[in-house]
Amino acid sequence: MDLGIPRTIEWLDGKVKLINQLKLPWKLEFIETRDYRRLGEAIKRMEIRGAPALGVAAAYGLALAALQIKEDELKNALKELENAKKFLEKTRPTAVNLFWALNRIYNQALNCSSVEEMKQKIVEEAKKITLEDEETNKLIGVHGNKILRDGDTVITVCNAGSLATSYYGTVLSPIYTAKSEGKEINVIVMETRPYLQGARLTAWELQKAGINVKVITDNSIGIILEKEKVDLALVGADRITKEGYVVNKIGTYPLALVCRENKKPFYSVAPTSTIDLSSEIKDVEIEKRPSEEVTEIFGKRITPEKVEAIYYAFDITPPSLLTGIITEKGILKKPFPESLKEAISK
Amino acid sequence: MDLGIPRTIEWLDGKVKLINQLKLPWKLEFIETRDYRRLGEAIKRMEIRGAPALGVAAAYGLALAALQIKEDELKNALKELENAKKFLEKTRPTAVNLFWALNRIYNQALNCSSVEEMKQKIVEEAKKITLEDEETNKLIGVHGNKILRDGDTVITVCNAGSLATSYYGTVLSPIYTAKSEGKEINVIVMETRPYLQGARLTAWELQKAGINVKVITDNSIGIILEKEKVDLALVGADRITKEGYVVNKIGTYPLALVCRENKKPFYSVAPTSTIDLSSEIKDVEIEKRPSEEVTEIFGKRITPEKVEAIYYAFDITPPSLLTGIITEKGILKKPFPESLKEAISK
Repeated sequence: MDLGIPRTIEWLDGKVKLINQLKLPWKLEFIETRDYRRLGEAIKRMEIRGAPALGVAAAYGLALAALQIKEDELKNALKELENAKKFLEKTRPTAVNLFWALNRIYNQALNCSSVEEMKQKIVEEAKKITLEDEETNKLIGVHGNKILRDGDTVITVCNAGSLATSYYGTVLSPIYTAKSEGKEINVIVMETRPYLQGARLTAWELQKAGINVKVITDNSIGIILEKEKVDLALVGADRITKEGYVVNKIGTYPLALVCRENKKPFYSVAPTSTIDLSSEIKDVEIEKRPSEEVTEIFGKRITPEKVEAIYYAFDITPPSLLTGIITEKGILKKPFPESLKEAISK
Repeated sequence: MDLGIPRTIEWLDGKVKLINQLKLPWKLEFIETRDYRRLGEAIKRMEIRGAPALGVAAAYGLALAALQIKEDELKNALKELENAKKFLEKTRPTAVNLFWALNRIYNQALNCSSVEEMKQKIVEEAKKITLEDEETNKLIGVHGNKILRDGDTVITVCNAGSLATSYYGTVLSPIYTAKSEGKEINVIVMETRPYLQGARLTAWELQKAGINVKVITDNSIGIILEKEKVDLALVGADRITKEGYVVNKIGTYPLALVCRENKKPFYSVAPTSTIDLSSEIKDVEIEKRPSEEVTEIFGKRITPEKVEAIYYAFDITPPSLLTGIITEKGILKKPFPESLKEAISK
């Protein structure tokens, strides 16, 4: 299924090509590189972002590093690979997917008997990670599509679309699937301050895919559900705890409250890899980020000097506010402690 | 009580001096003019804003116009005054306070027997409108102060402070009163997209007044009430219906929902002139504004070309979510249909 959206990141015969997301929506610009350090920079600068996309980028990064190795000696080659792995790990130290992908690739390398075999296996494994991500997202689309009716308007926040993954996206995947079946779906996206991923990225990829999209300020959710036709909310998840709490981009929890008040279904959409059965919500630390990320827009300060912002990157939606959780293994229903455990063990 | 904040707008012996709010928080710059057209421009360009402040500005505008009249003939002078009134009415056609002030002043002019008397009466009436606004705000402060305890943290939205009135403000008045009594009050303000009145104006005047203030993005309300110490919410009102619905800046209603969920008191703070006993919520039209006010920040577009925004300027908070309504006549409690009627008739 071609979405009309270019691929977020691609392996082109020893080279990686990715969309520079910092330039969106103003300009569609690609970065092409054979240098894993350049790819690491792209991760660091947020030229690529989104948990699944970061896993793929890290995997391709290590594959580039492997191909760059000039050593014939396996032991020395592994040493070089390890250095590259360490470099890539430092690019986004809180991105769980990145570590997961790097370890998975590195473990492949440990079981090889020659440098040549190692290079080949690493590239294969990186491609496999990408394909698996695509497959997962496609399945999320198939399941999520079941709840979408022709003419529905979906409200969402941030970007959990194709740009956040290798392709298709998580939250947006059901919408793309619905469109491919001829349903007309409309989207209202919260702009998502401070980084405006909704206004910049979600609006951009939906427009490319030919889906009608409108943007709102994050504080508009109340009046929008009152005055406009909104049928349901689909939001992503950065982490789902064993109890069914959804940790996701700020704005998710207020949206869930407004949906309950207006009797609109509210779904989280995420791969089962997001479910963390080992964590309870009381143990989850919410990332606090620097004040300046809020107090400056396009380099211009919006608050008086010395007035600072409090900026948490995520909020917490309790399971009671969720209608369901859409995963690649189906739509999970309450009670979530049971359905989450079952989905993981499938 | 001197707040440490310059006056929003002042009459200086035939001249009007006002803060240019478009320059805040970057620069404290005053506009001084003897020309009612320049003052009208200031209203139009939003160099001054906020319902009570617009009433005062319109009143002073008509006073300037009166002083500019060269006619000796009363009939001709009144004609000139009427033209000035029409000009000023066109500056912000949806500002109810502006019309109210202009009519009040103009009616004074109709009962004069000479041009000189007319000029004098108009200037007096304009000053009276300003003083009444100050008195009202001071009383709101006295009543609101009763619910503030030393060390409290208040969350608010937009700017219903001194800058929105002649002085003291409505929502911020209780905080200034509390401070003058030695209480330490902290404020968290929502930045209030798209115009950022919270980040720009509320943060500026609170800092000037020596009150500890922090800014948050509008989508942060959920996690802020979860993770930070917040004791209560104080929000303004653009209109309060006979049933007790509060029409106020977007973001108010989601904040009310988050407060209820977290068991925090939620008050609207407004003069009784905001209460409209003739209106039911079903008859209230919510102002929709141009898409570009959302899709451009500091002249830079944040959405792809042709992707538009839906922008309502206000939202609606139902009476069930309100703990009370703080007015110059006291703190009104449920059932609001009765307490609102009683307050108006006092």
